[in-house]
Amino acid sequence: MKLKTLSLAVGCTLFAAMPLRVALAADEPIQPVPPVKQINLALVELGKKLYFDPRLSKSGFISCNSCHNLSMGGTDNIPTSIGDHWQQGPINAPTVLNSSMNLAQFWDGRAADLQAQAGGPIANPGEMAFSHTLAVHVLESIPQYMREFKQAFGTDRINIDEVTAAIAEFEKTLVTPNSRFDKWLLGDKQALNDTELAGYQLFKNSGCTACHNGPAVGGNSFQKMGIVEPYKGNGVEGRSAVTGKDADRFNFKVPTLRNVELTYPYFHDGAANTLGEAVDTMGRIQLGRKFSADETASIVAFLKTLTGDQPTFLMPILPPSSDNTPRPTPFAAK
Amino acid sequence: MKLKTLSLAVGCTLFAAMPLRVALAADEPIQPVPPVKQINLALVELGKKLYFDPRLSKSGFISCNSCHNLSMGGTDNIPTSIGDHWQQGPINAPTVLNSSMNLAQFWDGRAADLQAQAGGPIANPGEMAFSHTLAVHVLESIPQYMREFKQAFGTDRINIDEVTAAIAEFEKTLVTPNSRFDKWLLGDKQALNDTELAGYQLFKNSGCTACHNGPAVGGNSFQKMGIVEPYKGNGVEGRSAVTGKDADRFNFKVPTLRNVELTYPYFHDGAANTLGEAVDTMGRIQLGRKFSADETASIVAFLKTLTGDQPTFLMPILPPSSDNTPRPTPFAAK
Repeated sequence: MKLKTLSLAVGCTLFAAMPLRVALAADEPIQPVPPVKQINLALVELGKKLYFDPRLSKSGFISCNSCHNLSMGGTDNIPTSIGDHWQQGPINAPTVLNSSMNLAQFWDGRAADLQAQAGGPIANPGEMAFSHTLAVHVLESIPQYMREFKQAFGTDRINIDEVTAAIAEFEKTLVTPNSRFDKWLLGDKQALNDTELAGYQLFKNSGCTACHNGPAVGGNSFQKMGIVEPYKGNGVEGRSAVTGKDADRFNFKVPTLRNVELTYPYFHDGAANTLGEAVDTMGRIQLGRKFSADETASIVAFLKTLTGDQPTFLMPILPPSSDNTPRPTPFAAK
Repeated sequence: MKLKTLSLAVGCTLFAAMPLRVALAADEPIQPVPPVKQINLALVELGKKLYFDPRLSKSGFISCNSCHNLSMGGTDNIPTSIGDHWQQGPINAPTVLNSSMNLAQFWDGRAADLQAQAGGPIANPGEMAFSHTLAVHVLESIPQYMREFKQAFGTDRINIDEVTAAIAEFEKTLVTPNSRFDKWLLGDKQALNDTELAGYQLFKNSGCTACHNGPAVGGNSFQKMGIVEPYKGNGVEGRSAVTGKDADRFNFKVPTLRNVELTYPYFHDGAANTLGEAVDTMGRIQLGRKFSADETASIVAFLKTLTGDQPTFLMPILPPSSDNTPRPTPFAAK
């Protein structure tokens, strides 16, 4: 907080920000996306297949990638997701990109980490609508998966903890370094233009970095949606559903702003279609501030510099089912 | 036909097939998958993005790859596909792999080529449920697409023929060379083991190659499903819906058997879950022949040698929507 205060003091007016061009990254409330370390590559390759495998769903149609689409910023770009039998989900699918940096998973933080998260949608009747037992049963019927799990875990059976561990390991690789903003943080002072830099100063000076800070520009605290003005949301109560505390009502995990250009629509209810709309709403309800059109535009210009290198990998080829593999039942309940 | 007759004469009993190890590929009713030629790479890259882009659907959830999944043999591995609002499709999704070799597209051949096919699902109310006008409107609102279409076609507007031309160009690259069977055809006589070779002889001698021949091992004629015995199908009438001729009732395009190990379930209604089941049924209803368990197993072993190199490519990153992009309406009709 000391460093942030210092930044605020230096950049107190919008276009007097030039001296900050020489500021060190360590002085900023946002840090570059850290490199991925200590990754188990056998788990990553297995987890990538599982992430794309719709046989983890009852219908055989929905995979992790259906709602956390790696072609689309790790999300589905619709307000709330589509589940089994086209059920409407209650909440916006958060991006999987850089999610390893979150303090907890899901908007309400009910999963401690990526592995705990990965098991949720598989067994959720409104999402993949399967069960852990049935998913494991499918995987154990597929010879190539049996070999890959044996290679990765050394066991002759598969269990759900291994499945979710592999998916989580793949997800840890889904970071997005090399955004223009990170290049600027790392010393390339030409990486941002004046509008973007002015937007960043305004983003800091207005108080946005009180919540959107750190390497993920968010993801590291729970905050109330609607501090100054109440937010007319979709009724999802947020963090209080986990803690049971009334004070946590309408508290949500602060979303990462990394790649926010790609992760529309915004907020836990997906109600904001554009970045401009989201900035305007957040200014009003969180900060009690009405940004001018120019101010909003400069913050949006800054936010678009947070788009990093998207994960690039070969589309995985899934191991074929065997004669013994239980077949999906996409229409069974009709 | 002359060459096929010759093969039949040589390989008339199952395990007397060894002399055929020296046969030339030209003598066989099946030829190797031919190399892809005359491809426009700008169109391929654009078409790949469009193939994966669910914004070509009303819901924003269904892309070409949803039902012709390139991680899963170019199909969806369910009996009939899932369309907008989870509608149940009338027919099994045929594989997109090697589909450029088909004499026409769809099971009933109602589209002359890949480009004509590509427009169908976008506007089909039971599939992507969009319209060509709306799809083009979405694409024109996305600056990166505008630039890529301009690069590929030299125009400042986008039209649906350009969209489908790009998708078709990408699909032309989706061929699967280097199967073990092709290696054998090309002279590597160790590529098949004795069971597989025996299966191939039986496949030829039983008459399967009357329809399943050529480089795609099918895809080059329409044939009646149920020649010797009627097939109790799902009532889809097939080719007669296109020609209006009663004689074409229950005629379907013969599916390619390339990668058939990956494209389960089988037949136009997806009623056969396993290759063994499919071989048994085809023997009975098309050839009037009851294969023994060993015979079926050897044909299945041969069929699995038709799995070629699957298309490998980097998962495409889709251009983000702009503020002006019409948003998908996944739940509008609820």
